[in-house]
Amino acid sequence: MFHYLSSRSVDSAGHSHPGPEKMTTLAMLTITADDGTRGYAFGPPEVIRPTVIEAFVRKVLVGQDPFDRERLWQDLVHWQRGSAGQLTDRALAVVEQALWDLAGRALKIPVYKLLGAYRDKVPAYGSTMCGDDLPGGLATPDDYARFAVTLVQRGYKAIKLHTWMPPVSFAPDPAMDIKACAAVREAVGPDIDLMLDGYHWYSRTDALTIGRALEKLNFAWFEEMMNEQSIASYTWLAKQLDIPIVGPESISGKHHSRADWAVAGACDILRAGVPGVGGITPTMKVAALADAFGMNCEVHGNGAANLAVTAAIKNCRWYERGLLHPFLDYDVVPGYLHALPDPMSADGFVQLSQQPGLGEDINFDYIAAHTVTNY
Amino acid sequence: MFHYLSSRSVDSAGHSHPGPEKMTTLAMLTITADDGTRGYAFGPPEVIRPTVIEAFVRKVLVGQDPFDRERLWQDLVHWQRGSAGQLTDRALAVVEQALWDLAGRALKIPVYKLLGAYRDKVPAYGSTMCGDDLPGGLATPDDYARFAVTLVQRGYKAIKLHTWMPPVSFAPDPAMDIKACAAVREAVGPDIDLMLDGYHWYSRTDALTIGRALEKLNFAWFEEMMNEQSIASYTWLAKQLDIPIVGPESISGKHHSRADWAVAGACDILRAGVPGVGGITPTMKVAALADAFGMNCEVHGNGAANLAVTAAIKNCRWYERGLLHPFLDYDVVPGYLHALPDPMSADGFVQLSQQPGLGEDINFDYIAAHTVTNY
Repeated sequence: MFHYLSSRSVDSAGHSHPGPEKMTTLAMLTITADDGTRGYAFGPPEVIRPTVIEAFVRKVLVGQDPFDRERLWQDLVHWQRGSAGQLTDRALAVVEQALWDLAGRALKIPVYKLLGAYRDKVPAYGSTMCGDDLPGGLATPDDYARFAVTLVQRGYKAIKLHTWMPPVSFAPDPAMDIKACAAVREAVGPDIDLMLDGYHWYSRTDALTIGRALEKLNFAWFEEMMNEQSIASYTWLAKQLDIPIVGPESISGKHHSRADWAVAGACDILRAGVPGVGGITPTMKVAALADAFGMNCEVHGNGAANLAVTAAIKNCRWYERGLLHPFLDYDVVPGYLHALPDPMSADGFVQLSQQPGLGEDINFDYIAAHTVTNY
Repeated sequence: MFHYLSSRSVDSAGHSHPGPEKMTTLAMLTITADDGTRGYAFGPPEVIRPTVIEAFVRKVLVGQDPFDRERLWQDLVHWQRGSAGQLTDRALAVVEQALWDLAGRALKIPVYKLLGAYRDKVPAYGSTMCGDDLPGGLATPDDYARFAVTLVQRGYKAIKLHTWMPPVSFAPDPAMDIKACAAVREAVGPDIDLMLDGYHWYSRTDALTIGRALEKLNFAWFEEMMNEQSIASYTWLAKQLDIPIVGPESISGKHHSRADWAVAGACDILRAGVPGVGGITPTMKVAALADAFGMNCEVHGNGAANLAVTAAIKNCRWYERGLLHPFLDYDVVPGYLHALPDPMSADGFVQLSQQPGLGEDINFDYIAAHTVTNY
């Protein structure tokens, strides 16, 4: 567990916003093979806690072949049931990521090539932070429009808006969301792909209203506008709308729940991210499931592991780069890395690192100097 | 393309039977990387023909990174559409297998570990040849019973019967199939798992009759008893029978058609083999699809590539070892190999080779000495 400087703060509902620069805590999991090869993965300290490592991860991993990823993952999944919620999918994902990183480092090959690459660079969409009430931030439709123009100037060929959520005083408001989307479309013109990921608990009827507006604005997809626990609601909406519905992102159930969504026609494009479904391999399984159904699987979230998956599969259009905000510079390298894992060129492509493993160029000296606790 | 000695012959319907020892032709595809690393895969000469290599495979592969498996595979799949049936899934599979073999050899690791191993050994079922009319062969229910006892003595914990098909004079005959199954159950007792893969074109009603008999005999699954082109027939049967229906094996459509079967409830256990669905990766995709649906995926067929998949996934119960016949010794190593890719211990487990790549211990001298044509 170590500290690094960050200018992000989290609001009372868990959404990231810009904030004063301050020391933030991150955990780095290290898995060491008998020959000394190591694999690394980062995660929130509250996810990859020492008690979780002790109670489950050590028990499953120590003494085993780190290349037995499927068996080790399945063993951890079995432990999940009796873990009283402690061994989360996110914790599982950190462990599995470290195993992949170890494999890549041991074999001296990037993980996306280990997976069997589909491409060496992936187009990125700029994914904004949620709306706020900061003057000049993301407080108005015009703020989104201005920010979108700067994102296009930076090279993005697609932008996804996260709009306003509580505790922002005026959220949720379908009309405001539509105004922000309209303002961005007006500002960037017809050739930039746009997506909306707004308030997550709209009613069916509000969701339909927003969806129809997005169709007129030629948006590329509409994401998590209702509680994802209700497959029926998504099936109801997807049947009526032409605009692709993307999901699910937040529900549990790994690849199994995604199969239920595909069968129900609850979405047009499946969604899975490495932390959310418990690792790189289960994300690949969701992508395979989607592929079997003739569907895309848009990978949720940024970072080296999600990037590796997007480069290994065909049926994902974009890498999600963000979260972005006018007050923050995403291209600043955090202290614990020597370089961004997802540098983007001026034409909007993220090039995959050719470093062995996940491609995170870790600044071990920085981490050693800023370590809070070793475990 | 080279010759090797084989004692198998093929009948007028394409089924293997014992025959006089004679020279048989096999093709070995070699893919060479820039650094000289090579990957190998074997296939029937009629599948991996020089014209197919020239028209499609060279065009897609030459000059490319052999680790870009997903892209190269997708490019070949695109070529399939305009290939007038020449670039078959089986040809695709040979190419993709060679890419995996190359990757494993380059990284000095077995392919099943590259995939992320689930286990190092897999229980095998003995898969018999189709019935025949050879005295002392597989001509009567008693023949099957006697042979089953020798298979159990050899170590098999499970046996799959392929029963009689035309051109055998008395086939098909549901009553004979049931008699053979009953004789085998009687001979091996209650503790051996038994499966039936008989005539592939029974009517729905004959299939139901046989299925009910297999339920009474406590068979573990019932396979391809009707034309697999009709999903509706399989859904009809699966709804009524308790005995698991396994399929589809023979239809085209790779992982996509398997999704349709899963949605339709046309089977209880999915089925895919490396040659049938166009490679190791698409077989892994079917396994992931099955996993997402809470289903097993029983891998079809023997050989190093299918074995690697069975060792990499959890949701496959058995490795299919065969085809077996009283007149043949499966444990004899063919001339073009130094060792079997699937040696089985006396307790019925096939241990995975720790050689880099697919684990085929190729006798290059033998192949050089028996080469018919080089291409």
